[in-house]
Amino acid sequence: MLTKASHLFDDATRVTAGDSCWQGKTSPDYWAFVGPFGGCTAATILRALLEHPQRAGDPLSLTVNFCAPIAEGGFDLDVRLVKANRSSQHWCVEMTQGGGEVATLATAVFAERRPSWSHQQAKFPGAAPFEQARSFPNTPMTWTHQYDFRFVEGEPSFYGSPANPPIVAYSKQWIGDRVPRTIDMLSLTSMSDAFFGRVFLARRELVPFGTVSITTYFHAAAEELAAEDITHVLAAADARIFHRSYGDQHGELWSPSGRLLATTTQIAYFKA
Amino acid sequence: MLTKASHLFDDATRVTAGDSCWQGKTSPDYWAFVGPFGGCTAATILRALLEHPQRAGDPLSLTVNFCAPIAEGGFDLDVRLVKANRSSQHWCVEMTQGGGEVATLATAVFAERRPSWSHQQAKFPGAAPFEQARSFPNTPMTWTHQYDFRFVEGEPSFYGSPANPPIVAYSKQWIGDRVPRTIDMLSLTSMSDAFFGRVFLARRELVPFGTVSITTYFHAAAEELAAEDITHVLAAADARIFHRSYGDQHGELWSPSGRLLATTTQIAYFKA
Repeated sequence: MLTKASHLFDDATRVTAGDSCWQGKTSPDYWAFVGPFGGCTAATILRALLEHPQRAGDPLSLTVNFCAPIAEGGFDLDVRLVKANRSSQHWCVEMTQGGGEVATLATAVFAERRPSWSHQQAKFPGAAPFEQARSFPNTPMTWTHQYDFRFVEGEPSFYGSPANPPIVAYSKQWIGDRVPRTIDMLSLTSMSDAFFGRVFLARRELVPFGTVSITTYFHAAAEELAAEDITHVLAAADARIFHRSYGDQHGELWSPSGRLLATTTQIAYFKA
Repeated sequence: MLTKASHLFDDATRVTAGDSCWQGKTSPDYWAFVGPFGGCTAATILRALLEHPQRAGDPLSLTVNFCAPIAEGGFDLDVRLVKANRSSQHWCVEMTQGGGEVATLATAVFAERRPSWSHQQAKFPGAAPFEQARSFPNTPMTWTHQYDFRFVEGEPSFYGSPANPPIVAYSKQWIGDRVPRTIDMLSLTSMSDAFFGRVFLARRELVPFGTVSITTYFHAAAEELAAEDITHVLAAADARIFHRSYGDQHGELWSPSGRLLATTTQIAYFKA
């Protein structure tokens, strides 16, 4: 950790106690349009799993389905180890509020990352260094204040579009915590949802938008990620289709040294 | 339907009755290395949801986590509508065998696909017509006998590798049912797991392999898919990384007319 004092992100993702039932609360510091930033919710769920006494191995995959808006305040996490094998664990987590209404449903796989043949097929997209890139200005959403976005390509332009622009949904950007914090599995999870909706880029405007389901795969073991010892990632994302009120996104998160740390995909609602 | 008689795929994915608990059984016709073909399992789960009396809307996303090998024989599907909103439904399905051991854990989102701005950002990969492509020979796995794979690019070569070959994980192939069957949400689901493990292509050999988690997004409403009235899709898949016993895969399934029907991603175990 770079900071000795508690980081806002650690406050925002705090969960307490419990064997199967954990508690947490939303943070005004990571607020989006109509609820908490989804990346923060996903990280909170992963945190309950990472801190669970029965947890073994490293996060391999995490899918979070956002079932309903999460209200400001407290929530319960029902955490269940569905199946454990010799080298992997399957978890199911339900986030509920106010009398058991499910707001979020997640599944996760943890695994012992045993040595194997290794090959990085994807090409590092590369970019000018973080220090040389310009920080993206704050938006009204408080969660964006907690990150330092530095676009290398595809910086969104929400207010004003040239005549007949080509439709572009691709962007490449550095993402770090505004107050630097060493990247771990939690921030990697959160950042995998921190790309901005592709529809905003494609339409060059902010429209009603909400992630419905996000899946992130982790490609480094926890100790490998720790050894990177980094405070920002190079993130690239694109979309394949916008149709009938839903659009997709797929993205990659890279260490500055060119190591693929995570890949992520999501399907999101939009109104346009 | 092209065939009046029951199609093997429909036999293999048959489920019966029940409000929350459905029953099915594995099919020897769709067998893989150590259990049923995962695509068939995923389709069976989706079928229980599609046939559920409470289901509303079309499949939007499906995530299936393979927790343990599925034994030959019967299984139970515990189907639960976790949350329903005005225009979407969130489901959770657990497949259990022999006294409640969970073999598969799935979540799904269904949605009313309302009209919206529409744009297909991904480019149709294109290919010589299905009729002109050569069928891939059968493998020992019976599930492959039920499909007609016609590779356009990246046909796997499992037995024999040139010296210092470039590592390629990409393939582009037509996929249809061997006995033609009109593509529906079920076969689209199954085919999204029918690419062959990317590690087989990259290593040019068959190695121990198993999908751990697969997520598929559907980009056409059911009636749009029906209107395509097709019996095969053009499927393209690639991998980004193989590391510490796990590798990823991402793929696209296209109609012959160039419509993106589904995108899929998975994380899979391998031993190499």
